[in-house]
Amino acid sequence: MQQTDPLVIFTPSGKRGRVPRGTRILDAARSLGVDLDSVCGGRGICSKCQVQPAFGRFDKHGVIVAEDALSCFNAVEQRYDEKRGLKAGRRLGCQAEILCDVVIDIPPESQVHRQVIRKAADARPIVMDPATRALMVEVARPDMHEPSGDMERLNAALKAQWNVSAATAPLPVLSRLQEALRTGGWQVTLALHQPEGTPPRVLEIWPGFYDGGLYGLAIDLGSTTIAAHLTDLSSGKVLASTGAMNPQIRFGEDLMSRVSYAMMNPGGAREMTRAVREALNGLARDIIDQTGTDPRAVVEATLVCNPVMHHLLLGLNPVELGQAPFALTVSGALSLDAAHLGLSALNSAARVYILPCIAGHVGADAAAVALSESPQTSEDLVLIVDVGTNAEILLGDRQGVLACSSPTGPAFEGAQISSGQRAAPGAIERVRIDPITKEPRFRVIGCESWSDEPGFAEAMAETGITGICGSGIIEAVAEMRMAGLVDSSGLIGSAAQTGTPRCRPEGRTHSYVLFETEDQRIAVTQGDIRAIQLAKSALYAGARLLMDKRGVDKVDRVVLAGAFGAHISPKHAMVLGMIPDVPLARVTSAGNAAGTGARIALCNRMARRDIEAIVRGITKVETAMEPRFQEHFVAANALPHASDPFPELARDVQLPQISFNSAHTEGGRRRRRRG
Amino acid sequence: MQQTDPLVIFTPSGKRGRVPRGTRILDAARSLGVDLDSVCGGRGICSKCQVQPAFGRFDKHGVIVAEDALSCFNAVEQRYDEKRGLKAGRRLGCQAEILCDVVIDIPPESQVHRQVIRKAADARPIVMDPATRALMVEVARPDMHEPSGDMERLNAALKAQWNVSAATAPLPVLSRLQEALRTGGWQVTLALHQPEGTPPRVLEIWPGFYDGGLYGLAIDLGSTTIAAHLTDLSSGKVLASTGAMNPQIRFGEDLMSRVSYAMMNPGGAREMTRAVREALNGLARDIIDQTGTDPRAVVEATLVCNPVMHHLLLGLNPVELGQAPFALTVSGALSLDAAHLGLSALNSAARVYILPCIAGHVGADAAAVALSESPQTSEDLVLIVDVGTNAEILLGDRQGVLACSSPTGPAFEGAQISSGQRAAPGAIERVRIDPITKEPRFRVIGCESWSDEPGFAEAMAETGITGICGSGIIEAVAEMRMAGLVDSSGLIGSAAQTGTPRCRPEGRTHSYVLFETEDQRIAVTQGDIRAIQLAKSALYAGARLLMDKRGVDKVDRVVLAGAFGAHISPKHAMVLGMIPDVPLARVTSAGNAAGTGARIALCNRMARRDIEAIVRGITKVETAMEPRFQEHFVAANALPHASDPFPELARDVQLPQISFNSAHTEGGRRRRRRG
Repeated sequence: MQQTDPLVIFTPSGKRGRVPRGTRILDAARSLGVDLDSVCGGRGICSKCQVQPAFGRFDKHGVIVAEDALSCFNAVEQRYDEKRGLKAGRRLGCQAEILCDVVIDIPPESQVHRQVIRKAADARPIVMDPATRALMVEVARPDMHEPSGDMERLNAALKAQWNVSAATAPLPVLSRLQEALRTGGWQVTLALHQPEGTPPRVLEIWPGFYDGGLYGLAIDLGSTTIAAHLTDLSSGKVLASTGAMNPQIRFGEDLMSRVSYAMMNPGGAREMTRAVREALNGLARDIIDQTGTDPRAVVEATLVCNPVMHHLLLGLNPVELGQAPFALTVSGALSLDAAHLGLSALNSAARVYILPCIAGHVGADAAAVALSESPQTSEDLVLIVDVGTNAEILLGDRQGVLACSSPTGPAFEGAQISSGQRAAPGAIERVRIDPITKEPRFRVIGCESWSDEPGFAEAMAETGITGICGSGIIEAVAEMRMAGLVDSSGLIGSAAQTGTPRCRPEGRTHSYVLFETEDQRIAVTQGDIRAIQLAKSALYAGARLLMDKRGVDKVDRVVLAGAFGAHISPKHAMVLGMIPDVPLARVTSAGNAAGTGARIALCNRMARRDIEAIVRGITKVETAMEPRFQEHFVAANALPHASDPFPELARDVQLPQISFNSAHTEGGRRRRRRG
Repeated sequence: MQQTDPLVIFTPSGKRGRVPRGTRILDAARSLGVDLDSVCGGRGICSKCQVQPAFGRFDKHGVIVAEDALSCFNAVEQRYDEKRGLKAGRRLGCQAEILCDVVIDIPPESQVHRQVIRKAADARPIVMDPATRALMVEVARPDMHEPSGDMERLNAALKAQWNVSAATAPLPVLSRLQEALRTGGWQVTLALHQPEGTPPRVLEIWPGFYDGGLYGLAIDLGSTTIAAHLTDLSSGKVLASTGAMNPQIRFGEDLMSRVSYAMMNPGGAREMTRAVREALNGLARDIIDQTGTDPRAVVEATLVCNPVMHHLLLGLNPVELGQAPFALTVSGALSLDAAHLGLSALNSAARVYILPCIAGHVGADAAAVALSESPQTSEDLVLIVDVGTNAEILLGDRQGVLACSSPTGPAFEGAQISSGQRAAPGAIERVRIDPITKEPRFRVIGCESWSDEPGFAEAMAETGITGICGSGIIEAVAEMRMAGLVDSSGLIGSAAQTGTPRCRPEGRTHSYVLFETEDQRIAVTQGDIRAIQLAKSALYAGARLLMDKRGVDKVDRVVLAGAFGAHISPKHAMVLGMIPDVPLARVTSAGNAAGTGARIALCNRMARRDIEAIVRGITKVETAMEPRFQEHFVAANALPHASDPFPELARDVQLPQISFNSAHTEGGRRRRRRG
């Protein structure tokens, strides 16, 4: 470039350089490696390359930009402005030419790799770099004297106009190429899939310029529930989220019962495969219908799940996952045709990316949590717990990350609880018990008021109070512990011991009645407490085992992940001893981190390579075969713990030192009161 | 290597080198780049690595080989010899160790890249290098403490034992991996597909050592007939060949009538796609059943066909091929899942390779002929004619190759001929006419005798004489021309003009009766002669057009390809002026060169890359739009030709100078007799 060539400075990147006078802004951006979007390839159609030139004196950049630094509106830009309207000051990057020194701002919506803010306040944004993009190309007409196929000329155009080499197209897409080219006057828009390290593939073709957007589904396939998020692959925006029960529940509530089902029933695994594929496809169809999205525009899905769900979805026998050495058939990430998973609701050529599994008990869902929470870049030692039917646990920092899973069972999700139910309208989700009166108040999903506030009864008339969900039972048990209704061993006291008639005998144990009408009673039974104790002991023992492996006695912070994690109060979790003792302020919720991980992998193709590398680097710990896991499990049975001190918890909460064990009741009480 | 290390010399390659004492022969071969087969990877199971050591003094190699140059039989070799028997003097290359200088011969059957002799005597052999090979691997058992998937451990084993990286497996194959590994004691044999330039893919898995062989189908999909050759992918041997009619015939006899059908009938193209896919699959099923082959072992197919068949098979609309500029949807080679073409009779993960098309009228069948006949390496200028419903014509030598197709129509295949039929028992296939008596004699398919030989009548009692096939009608017309029954314009003379009562009036023209009984008459009509004239004119005009483009008036040799080419007598073809004048000895038949090309692509993966490059280098000529084609066509209507001299033909055959045109009969006769 000549010294006399105009200087162009792009913001916010700060990239600058001289370009020949008359260079189009889009070309200048491309030659300087500035991220400026375009779908139509510079034909003045898509308007994705809109930029905002700035005029005047810029000391910071050392330039003065004259009013006539850019060419005037040409016919194309004029027509675009008249028809569709350009915002004041905006120019089409593919039309406006650089005549003199100029400063050009690329607004976020004109960047391919724009950043998308996640919901969680302190989370890093997602950088858009989807594997599938819409690209418009102008294809040469066929020439009898230089015969070549439409597909070959399309590839030549892709190379010349987008520097894309050797794209392939599946047969059904290829069969639509002819007509699209001829209808579109030899211009077509492609949904071009370019994952890292594999040849590009045309997933869809539209004649001419297609502006309907491309979409993907981020799917979190849990043992109990399936969640899908329909995401715009250009903006990263979630258009809609939807969920459904995993129909495999009818074959077994938890993972191991489904593995047993597969083991005991010939064809059982295939039955479960069919069920989950149908459910996924139905969910996809629903969300696509609800949003009025064109199914042809839904070109990708990413999927996270635990290893048993993973194998059942893929049609792989899960039986090996039920017994040592818990061998996965395939652990690496998988890229598949959606059609091969029966996902016919999507584009027929849509691709599915399944995140890698970490180990036989630690699945792609845990990998997704790692992708979302990045423990491998954490400065302080973070414990990440994804609570579901199985708990996945990650512990680590920059020095390294360990992972395990722990068989908590479905108690945390309201299953195996006498009045338990899944989180749905009518379920008690929050509980408070007055330490003096021992009277409860609670909140129910679907109603903003607490049960002792005005308007609650009217609101309840509609949904009724149907049961207690996972977060509700955790709060209930923790509140009972704090109110002196449950002792550290997990025993519920009698009415006499606790001083409230809500503690009612039930066989040889007691229950605490939360809510009662003439024909309904919702209570926390001794069995419920035991179920929660088993679940939380497993969770705590898993975390403790990782801490042993890492050689530490405490962690710096705790992240609760899982849709459920968002609803657990840190204080209540710690009263139960679900998680190791840390300052309460250092317990945060990451929301549905697995779902977020799936969404990141959907929006950023490099993230796929990242998580594959991260997973390879994780130290895997198999809880089932570690003798210390049993020790930790037994010790963690107490509320909060038999031996580990909880000094941070003690700063905030004084737990009553009581014991309701009938054999030692008096002695126990006395001893402790004296101590 | 030390100077004192033993020297090993491999024959027939002559490769030599020193290896450490105790090196196994297989390892020595691998390190020296000697082609020595192994499926079991050196476990003494497959015996593919059998070698023949030679002992004594070898002046040629400058070594003396002692009797104890190799280690004695070890336990593995001993067991193998006892159980399955080693030929005298043979050793297992994976067991015998090199102790002193030795000469080792690799017999052809122990070479991976062995040469397979083709049927045609002067053709180059096929070098075996199939895209899919059987490989046995020993996979590490799962380790709970270093968890990884079976597939990941399989890949690690492939890398360590076969230097194969990052193989993938389709889901149905992956779903069988678990069981195969556990049944096979962590040893499995894979059908590993490794085409040039794409990642390896596991097409099938067998527990332990699998010795059943791998097979492929070479398919020649013609407009009229489909032929399939079941081929052993290790030896290159054709186990069986079979053929069937193309069921698309019911939609139209020739290509253009099928294109019309697609154009005029909505869904017509889809109907034809379904028909041909079903026929192909049926053919595959038949040949697999007949030979008792395990369908799982049939892992590949290669396919050649003309562009219309190509598009209809792939489900691409052929309508564009029926009108200028004759644009193909895709012209390059295609690699597909057999399942996507409905070929369910093969292994469910089988792959299909379709050779590239040359142009809108010159298909993958012509490419296969080029692969088989290699005009691009010919020292002299060769004209290759593949005669079918459409004729594909190649002209070239080392300087370059030109190609075109010519619309001969189905007359050469016996269609559009009054007594015409396809080549099947009962069809007259050869004809001779006595120039003096004008009496015919002929041979019929299914009988070795000529019609004037003893035993013919008895043989015919069974099949009957049902019609006349393509080669029969060509010979009949040529013989009629030589016997003075037809003049150079193609007119059949009257009984008076020719002196034989076999010439009978039929409306305003005449027929020549070849065979007659009370209720049957097989004759060559004037219409038949016209049909043959149109077909041969098209063929000759195409060849002449390529010669014009090349700037030559004659060619050095002619190759007749096509199943039909094998049955045309060069002399008769030239009497008709089907092909340019060359010495008769320089007209050869390449048999089914398209089928051979398909077989080469099946047996040698590099041949696929070769033909793709050859096709890119071919100069394509579109006959339909060349004004000179019409001129050549009109001039070629005469028998043999109106203006081109046929001096080489004249050396062998004196054609009567006659004319039966009633308007000029006398004058014409006189003029020519005087000339």
